[in-house]
Amino acid sequence: MKKRILDKPESNCGIVGVFGDKEAAHLSYLALYALQHRGQESSGIVCSDGEEVRRHIAQGLVADVYSDPNIFNYLQGHIAIGHNRYSTTGSTHLINAQPLLLTGKDGPLAISHNGNFTNSGILRQELEGKGSIFQTTTDTEVIAHLIARSQKEEFSAKIIDALRQIRGAYSLVMMTRDRIYATRDPHGVRPLCIGKKGKTYFVVSETCALDILRADYVRDIEPGELVELSDQGLRAFKIDDSQKRHACIFEFIYFSRPDSKIFNENVDKVRRKLGKNLALELPTDADIVISVPDSSNTAAVGFSRRSNIKFDLGLIRNHYIGRTFIHPKQNMRDFGVRIKFNTVKGILQGRRVVVVEDSIVRGTTLKQLVKLIRQAGATEIHVRVSSPPIISPCYYGMDFPSKEELIAHNKSVDEITDFLGCDSLHYLSIDGLMNSVSQEQGGFCTACFTGKYPIVIEDNIGKFQHEKAKKVKITD
Amino acid sequence: MKKRILDKPESNCGIVGVFGDKEAAHLSYLALYALQHRGQESSGIVCSDGEEVRRHIAQGLVADVYSDPNIFNYLQGHIAIGHNRYSTTGSTHLINAQPLLLTGKDGPLAISHNGNFTNSGILRQELEGKGSIFQTTTDTEVIAHLIARSQKEEFSAKIIDALRQIRGAYSLVMMTRDRIYATRDPHGVRPLCIGKKGKTYFVVSETCALDILRADYVRDIEPGELVELSDQGLRAFKIDDSQKRHACIFEFIYFSRPDSKIFNENVDKVRRKLGKNLALELPTDADIVISVPDSSNTAAVGFSRRSNIKFDLGLIRNHYIGRTFIHPKQNMRDFGVRIKFNTVKGILQGRRVVVVEDSIVRGTTLKQLVKLIRQAGATEIHVRVSSPPIISPCYYGMDFPSKEELIAHNKSVDEITDFLGCDSLHYLSIDGLMNSVSQEQGGFCTACFTGKYPIVIEDNIGKFQHEKAKKVKITD
Amino acid sequence: MKKRILDKPESNCGIVGVFGDKEAAHLSYLALYALQHRGQESSGIVCSDGEEVRRHIAQGLVADVYSDPNIFNYLQGHIAIGHNRYSTTGSTHLINAQPLLLTGKDGPLAISHNGNFTNSGILRQELEGKGSIFQTTTDTEVIAHLIARSQKEEFSAKIIDALRQIRGAYSLVMMTRDRIYATRDPHGVRPLCIGKKGKTYFVVSETCALDILRADYVRDIEPGELVELSDQGLRAFKIDDSQKRHACIFEFIYFSRPDSKIFNENVDKVRRKLGKNLALELPTDADIVISVPDSSNTAAVGFSRRSNIKFDLGLIRNHYIGRTFIHPKQNMRDFGVRIKFNTVKGILQGRRVVVVEDSIVRGTTLKQLVKLIRQAGATEIHVRVSSPPIISPCYYGMDFPSKEELIAHNKSVDEITDFLGCDSLHYLSIDGLMNSVSQEQGGFCTACFTGKYPIVIEDNIGKFQHEKAKKVKITD
Amino acid sequence: MKKRILDKPESNCGIVGVFGDKEAAHLSYLALYALQHRGQESSGIVCSDGEEVRRHIAQGLVADVYSDPNIFNYLQGHIAIGHNRYSTTGSTHLINAQPLLLTGKDGPLAISHNGNFTNSGILRQELEGKGSIFQTTTDTEVIAHLIARSQKEEFSAKIIDALRQIRGAYSLVMMTRDRIYATRDPHGVRPLCIGKKGKTYFVVSETCALDILRADYVRDIEPGELVELSDQGLRAFKIDDSQKRHACIFEFIYFSRPDSKIFNENVDKVRRKLGKNLALELPTDADIVISVPDSSNTAAVGFSRRSNIKFDLGLIRNHYIGRTFIHPKQNMRDFGVRIKFNTVKGILQGRRVVVVEDSIVRGTTLKQLVKLIRQAGATEIHVRVSSPPIISPCYYGMDFPSKEELIAHNKSVDEITDFLGCDSLHYLSIDGLMNSVSQEQGGFCTACFTGKYPIVIEDNIGKFQHEKAKKVKITD
Repeated sequence: MKKRILDKPESNCGIVGVFGDKEAAHLSYLALYALQHRGQESSGIVCSDGEEVRRHIAQGLVADVYSDPNIFNYLQGHIAIGHNRYSTTGSTHLINAQPLLLTGKDGPLAISHNGNFTNSGILRQELEGKGSIFQTTTDTEVIAHLIARSQKEEFSAKIIDALRQIRGAYSLVMMTRDRIYATRDPHGVRPLCIGKKGKTYFVVSETCALDILRADYVRDIEPGELVELSDQGLRAFKIDDSQKRHACIFEFIYFSRPDSKIFNENVDKVRRKLGKNLALELPTDADIVISVPDSSNTAAVGFSRRSNIKFDLGLIRNHYIGRTFIHPKQNMRDFGVRIKFNTVKGILQGRRVVVVEDSIVRGTTLKQLVKLIRQAGATEIHVRVSSPPIISPCYYGMDFPSKEELIAHNKSVDEITDFLGCDSLHYLSIDGLMNSVSQEQGGFCTACFTGKYPIVIEDNIGKFQHEKAKKVKITD
Repeated sequence: MKKRILDKPESNCGIVGVFGDKEAAHLSYLALYALQHRGQESSGIVCSDGEEVRRHIAQGLVADVYSDPNIFNYLQGHIAIGHNRYSTTGSTHLINAQPLLLTGKDGPLAISHNGNFTNSGILRQELEGKGSIFQTTTDTEVIAHLIARSQKEEFSAKIIDALRQIRGAYSLVMMTRDRIYATRDPHGVRPLCIGKKGKTYFVVSETCALDILRADYVRDIEPGELVELSDQGLRAFKIDDSQKRHACIFEFIYFSRPDSKIFNENVDKVRRKLGKNLALELPTDADIVISVPDSSNTAAVGFSRRSNIKFDLGLIRNHYIGRTFIHPKQNMRDFGVRIKFNTVKGILQGRRVVVVEDSIVRGTTLKQLVKLIRQAGATEIHVRVSSPPIISPCYYGMDFPSKEELIAHNKSVDEITDFLGCDSLHYLSIDGLMNSVSQEQGGFCTACFTGKYPIVIEDNIGKFQHEKAKKVKITD
Repeated sequence: MKKRILDKPESNCGIVGVFGDKEAAHLSYLALYALQHRGQESSGIVCSDGEEVRRHIAQGLVADVYSDPNIFNYLQGHIAIGHNRYSTTGSTHLINAQPLLLTGKDGPLAISHNGNFTNSGILRQELEGKGSIFQTTTDTEVIAHLIARSQKEEFSAKIIDALRQIRGAYSLVMMTRDRIYATRDPHGVRPLCIGKKGKTYFVVSETCALDILRADYVRDIEPGELVELSDQGLRAFKIDDSQKRHACIFEFIYFSRPDSKIFNENVDKVRRKLGKNLALELPTDADIVISVPDSSNTAAVGFSRRSNIKFDLGLIRNHYIGRTFIHPKQNMRDFGVRIKFNTVKGILQGRRVVVVEDSIVRGTTLKQLVKLIRQAGATEIHVRVSSPPIISPCYYGMDFPSKEELIAHNKSVDEITDFLGCDSLHYLSIDGLMNSVSQEQGGFCTACFTGKYPIVIEDNIGKFQHEKAKKVKITD
Repeated sequence: MKKRILDKPESNCGIVGVFGDKEAAHLSYLALYALQHRGQESSGIVCSDGEEVRRHIAQGLVADVYSDPNIFNYLQGHIAIGHNRYSTTGSTHLINAQPLLLTGKDGPLAISHNGNFTNSGILRQELEGKGSIFQTTTDTEVIAHLIARSQKEEFSAKIIDALRQIRGAYSLVMMTRDRIYATRDPHGVRPLCIGKKGKTYFVVSETCALDILRADYVRDIEPGELVELSDQGLRAFKIDDSQKRHACIFEFIYFSRPDSKIFNENVDKVRRKLGKNLALELPTDADIVISVPDSSNTAAVGFSRRSNIKFDLGLIRNHYIGRTFIHPKQNMRDFGVRIKFNTVKGILQGRRVVVVEDSIVRGTTLKQLVKLIRQAGATEIHVRVSSPPIISPCYYGMDFPSKEELIAHNKSVDEITDFLGCDSLHYLSIDGLMNSVSQEQGGFCTACFTGKYPIVIEDNIGKFQHEKAKKVKITD
C-alpha cells in the first residue's frame, strides 16, 4: 500500500557474523547499523549460545527493528549472524526476511545471503523433483536444501558440496549451533572481509562495520574460499581457485560507503580517481563543480582537484525522508525531486556549473535536478558522470531495472543530453573507469556497462523466478 | 512477555475450507469467527483464484486479525482454507501460524491442521535423514514433506500415501491452487463436517460455523476418508476403514460449542444428559443448582431438571478479559478468580448450593470459586463434575498439562474435596459418561479418564518435541 | 474508519476513586476492569503521590489500555481516580478521554464524570463570554471552569459553588494533588458508592468493583452529597437535600451488572422480580422460556419460576466480538445477528418458546433473532419484555437514539409484533416495573417510558452540543 | 522509555500557514517536511474549510505522522496551519503537541508557535488567578487565554491586545475558522516570511519551505507586525515598531537550512563568510580542511577558499539514525560518536587537518571526533569553530543546556583545547561574527555568546516552568 521513493539502485544486502563475544547480537546490531545503506527493507539477527538458537527479524530500519531492549535480553549467546535486506528476488514480506533459519538432520542452520544465484531456478526445480518443499520465494533457501541433501560426513564438506552446485554472485554467512561459515563465490563478485578484536572474530560486507565495532581489519575472504569460525579458531577451505576474479565495480562507483575498504582498496580513493579521470577526459570551462549529494561527493571533489574548478555546495539533500513519503495528489511528479533536493541559489545564480553524478539509471531524477539547477539561475549546466553508460541489467545482485528502462540502452549520449536538458553531458569511458581501480588483485565485472556477463545465467531469471513469486503471496 | 490467563484446556484448533464462492476468504473469516473458541492464539487464511495463492496470518483474535478491510481486497479467489490456532506443540510465534504454505513440485500447498500426530518426531527424523529441512516447529510440516516425496502420480494419491504413514488424531483441510482436500484420521478423533449452500461447499470443525454462514449441514467426513473439492464437485476416497472410531469425548464435555453438532450428535443434548446422569448418580439435598459459566451451563440445566433443584445464576462471568491481563503486584493470586467471576450474593446467601462444573484439571480455579461462593454466604457447597476424574494427559490434541499437574492423578476424591474446601464432591462415573452419548456411530476415546490410549504414541512426545522446540526460537 | 456493532444502549460511564493505598492505580485498574460494561471506548487513570500528578489514557478495553506493565511503574501514588468512557456527548477522540486533567490556580484537578449536564451548553456559552476557552467537546470541562472561577476560599467550597450551578444527572469523582472528591447530583440519577478495605477508601459506580477488590461496601453517596477523602479521612458535605430522588430505573433493567448493588438494592433481585411480574401480567402457554443472553438471563429465570415454564438455553452468545468486526460485503445485514447469536436447535425445535428480552430500542436485532429462532424450528414465539415500551430519549446519560429511531415511539404493540414477526408480544407495565423496585429510598426516573423528565433540559441538547462538536474534529 | 541521541541544540520549531488552496493540508505537509530540521518530536496540522475545523497531530517525523493517506481525506479545506515541534518548555507528550486547538467565544482558534515567552509564568499565574484553567504545560496556551479575555471587538484587535501583554521571542501562526494570522515579536528574534503562488498565500519559518512548494518569496513578516490572511487578501497591522531588531544570529550559524533565506539574507552566504573570517583571524598551516557534516559544510568550504587549504571529505555521517538508537550495554560511551560518524582513513592519514565545526555546546561529541580523527592517522588536528564560545543559555527558543553544562562557561580556550585533545583551537571572534552578517535590517541577539539579553526575562524560567511541568505528567 505504501511506495518507497527509489531513484537509485539501492539493492544488494549487508551481512555480518560475530563469533566469540557474549554480546554477539549487540555487536551484530551495530555492524548492521553501519551497513544500513546496503538494505533498508528488513533486518534480522540469529544467535546461539551453543545450545539454543534464537531469531529476531522485522521489517524496517535497523534502529527501529531492534528498538525494544528486550530483544537483546532474548538474543543471548556468543555467536550471531545478521542481515539487512533489500530484495532483488522474492517478494518483500517477512517470511522472506533473512537470516533464513531452518532445521535438518544436522540441527539448526541460519543463512545470510548477499548476491544472486544464477541457477537457483534450475536447482529448485531439481530439488522439488526429489521431494523438497520450499517456504520462501528467495533463492537462499536452495542452498539449505543442497546442504541437507549432501552425502558428505563433515558439515564443512556438506557446505562445500552444496556450494559447488551453485552458480552466481554470492557472499554468504551461515551459522550452526556452534559455528559460523563464511564464503564468497569463486569470482568474488560481492565483498566480504574478516575482522578481529581481542579473541572475537567478525565477518562483514564492508570495513565500515568493523570501524563502528573498533575491530581491526584482518583480510578479505578470498573468492572461492570457505572460512569456518569455531571454538578452535579460524579454519579456511579452498573450494575453487580456478576462476578469474570479477569483483563488482559498481560497489566502488556507488554502492559501498566511501569510508570502507573493499576488494583491498579504499572506496574513497577509487571514487576520487573516477572524478579525476572524468575531469581529464573532457576539460570543461566552468565556474563551479557541484555534487549530487551524498553518493557523488567524493568524485566531485576529485573532479574539482584535477580541473581546478572550485568545488561548491549547490544542492542540499533532505535526509528525513523516512520509510514512506505520501505525495500530495496534485502535481505529484514535479514535487518529486524537491522532496529530496533543494538548490542553494546564491551559489548557482549566474554560474556555469559542472554537476557530477555517479551514474545514470533511468535519468528521470537527474532531468528534474537539471531543471531545478537551471531555475536557480545557472547559466550553463555540464553533467559529468563518473561511470560509463549503464546499458545492461545486473544478474548478480544490483537492483537495476530491465533493459528497456535503462536510458543508456535506449538513447545515445546526444539524445540523453537532450532528455536531461543540460548543456553538455560526458560519461566516464570504460578505460577511464578501469584506470581508476587497481587490478593487482584480479579483474572486475563490468557487465552493466559492457553487456559481457562473466558468469553464465543458467536460469531465465526475470521469467522463471517471477512466475514462482507470482503464485504465492503472503502478508504478515 | 505477556501471559494469558488460562485455567482451562483451551487447546485444539478450528479449521475451515470454502470452495466455490468468489467471497471464499470472507466466508472463511466468518466461519473462523464462529470457531474462535477452538483457538485464540493466531488466525490465518490462504486463498486461491485458481492461479495465485495468497496468505494472510497474524497473531490475535479473528475479529482483530482481519480488521483491516484491505485484507479482503487482497484475499481474492473462490477457494480458501483457514485456521484458528492454539498451539499444543511448537512455540507460539508467527512462523508456526497456520495455514502452513509451502511450494514443491506440484506447486503451492496450504495445510490447516487440528490435532496431533503421534509419530511426527520419528517421521521428521527420517525425513531429515533423507535431506528434508524444516522451517517450523509444528508437526504439520511433516505431512507436506511426505506428500512432496510421494512417488504417486495423482495428487490425491500422494496425499493418501502420506496419510498412511501418519499416526495420531488429526483433522486436516488442505488446499492446492485449484482444489481442497479434507480428511479425518482413521479413528475419527477430531470432528470435521461438510456443509453446502447453493453450489458452494464448506468444510468446518463444527456445525456452528455452518450456521453463521447459513449453510446446510451435509454430513461428517468419515474417519479415514479423504474428500476432494474441485470444479468437478465432491469426490471421496476411502483411505482406511479398518479402524474402530475413537471420537474425543471431551469435545462433548467441554471443548465444542453447545450449539454445534459433532460426531452426529448435538453437543447440547449430550451435555444436558451428562448433567442428568450426574444428578441421578448421587441424589443431593440442596436449594439451588448453579453453573460455572459458560461451559457448564447446559449440564447444570440438565442437573436441575433431573434433580428438581432450581437452576439459578449464582456466578457472573466477566467476558472482557482481552488478550492479556496484567495482574497487580500485590496479592496477585487471590485476585485471580475475581478477574473472571463474581458471585451474586442475593442468590447464594443462606443457600445450600450445587455447583456444576464440566471438568477439573488442576483444581486451582475451582478452589478459589468455592471460597468465593462460601464468602457470599452459601451454607453448603456441593461440587458436581459432569465428567470423570482426569487422570492422564491427552496426546491427541487437547492441551492438558502433564500428569503431575492433574489433580485427579495425584489425589483421591476425598483429598480433592478437602483441597477444594467444598462440602461434597461427586464426579460423573465412566458409565454415566458413556451412557450420555450415542455409540451407534462408533466408540470414543476416553484416555484422559482411563489412561487407555487407543492410538499408539510412537514418539516420546513431550520430550522429543520439546527438545526440538527448545533449540530454535523466533520472534516476529 | 471502523464501526462498532452496537444494538443496545451501551452508553454511560464507569468511574472509580482510590484513596490510601500505595498501589492506588493498580486497584483503580481492577475496579475499572469490573466496570468495563459501563464503557468500552477508552479508559484512563490519574494518580498522585501527593506531589506529582500523572495520567495515562488510551482508547480500547481496560485489559488492553493497561497491558504494558511499565504503565504501573509510572502511575505512582496513593491516590487515583479512573474512568471508562462511552461517549454520550462529544466526539470519540482521545482528547475527550477521561479523567480530564487541568491546572488552575489551585493546582492540578482531575475529573471523572458519569452522566450528562442538562445546562452545559448555556454554562459554556456564559463561560466563553467571560473569556474561558475549551479544549474538549465534553460537558465535563464546564465544571472545571466553574471551580476555577469560584470566589470561595476552601477548595471544597469552590466545588460546592460550581455544583450548585450545574443541572443534570451526574456522578463525579474528582482529584486534586492530595484529595478525592465524589458527588452525586441532587436527584441521585446515577449510582456511586463508598467502599473500604483496611484504611483504604474506594468510590465506585457499582459494588461489583468493590467485590473484585475484596473491599467492603460502606454506603451509597447520597443524592446532593459531596464526599471528601483526604489524610484526615472522610468528610461529607450536604449540597442540596431538597430534591426528590430520581434514580435511573434503567440501571436495574439493563445497564448495571446483576451482581451489583445500586441504589441500596441488589440488581439481581430487582431483575428477577421484573421477570416474575412479567409472567404474572400475562400468563402464557409455552414449553420453554429462553433468554436473550446475557442481560436478560436473570429476568428469564424469574419468569420461569413464576410461570412454571422451564428455563432453557436456546440462544448461544459469541463473546469474542472484539473491538471491531468487519462485515463481509455480501448480505451484510443478514449475517448481523449471527455474529452475536446462534440457536441451539435441539432445544427450540418443535417447541413453543417464550423469549425474554430486557428492553427493545430499535427492534432490529430482536427481529432477526425471532427469525433465527423460527428457523430453528420453534412452533410459537412469545416475546416478553421485562420493561415498558421506550418512547422517549434519555437526556441523563443513557445512549438511546433519537425519538424517531425508537420503535415504540412510532409503532403500537400490535405493529411491533408484526414487525418482529413473533406470535405474541408483551411489555411489562409501568405498574409492574414500579412494583419490582423498592421505593423506600426515594423515587425513580422513568422518563424513557413515560416522557416525564424530572430534571429540566435547559440546553437544546442534540442541537447546541452537536453544533459545537461539528466544528472541531481531532484525530490522535 | 526511549532516548534520543542529541548532542546538538536541535530545539526550536517549524511553523507554516497556507491560505487559499483546496489542498491546503497537503501543501502544509510539504512545507513541514522541508522544515523537519526545526523539530522532530511531533507534527500537526489544523485545517478549515471555512466551517469545520479539523486537526491531526502525532509524535514522530513528518513523513511518518502523515503516512496514512486517509489523513488527507480527512484534512479538508482551503486554510491550514502546521507545526513541527521540538519542545523547549513543557513535557514531550501528545497533549502538548501543536498546533494547539481551543474553542472560545469566537469559535475555534489554532496556534502554532516558534519561540519562547519570557513572561508566560507570570501571565499564567495572573490568568489562573482570574479563573483560567490550563490543559497543557506549554507557554502557547497563555496567548489563547489572553485573546479569549480581551474586551476588544474585532478579532484582530483581540490578538493585538494579547500580543501587547506578551514578552519574549516568538513567531506565531494562528488560524480561526476563516482566517490566518501571523506575527513576529517586536524584536524579530525568530524568522517568518510570506510566500505566494497564484492566489495562494504561505507563511513559513524559512524560505526552503517555499522552494519545495514552488512558491515565490514575497517578504519577511516585520518585527512587531501582524498579518491577516482572509478572503479579502492580506492585511497588515503594526503592533509595535519602537523596538530594535534582535534577530537570532544562531539561526545563521547552525539552525536554519543553508538553502534558506532568513532575515533578508542567504544563510549559505553568511555561513560561508563565517568560514572565511575564521580563516582570516588565525592563519593555519595544514594539509586539508574537513567539516563536521552536514551543518559545518558551508563554513568549511568558506574556510578552504580563504585559506587556500584544500577542502576534503574526512568524515562520513550516517543518516539512518532513526527515532531511537538502542545502545549496546558494554562500552556504550565509546560507541557513541561512531554511531553517527566514521573517518575516511585514506584522507586523514599522515595529514595535518583543520576541522571546522559550527559551534561547541558541551564538547563531548567533538572530543570523541578528535580522538577518531587522531586514530585515523591525522598528524595534527586544528579545530576551528565558526562561532564564538557559547557562555550563556538561550531564553528565546534555542535548546541549549544550563550554564553549568556549557563547556565555554566553565573552561578557558586553553582548557577546552586540552579537553578536546586537539593541537589547536580557535573560535571565531564576536567581531568576526558580526562582520559576517548584514546589519542593514537591524541588529542581532548574541546573548549566548555575550550574556547580554536584549529582552528581559520576567519569569524565573527553568524554575517556575519546571515546577509546573513537574506536577503534571501524561502518557498518551
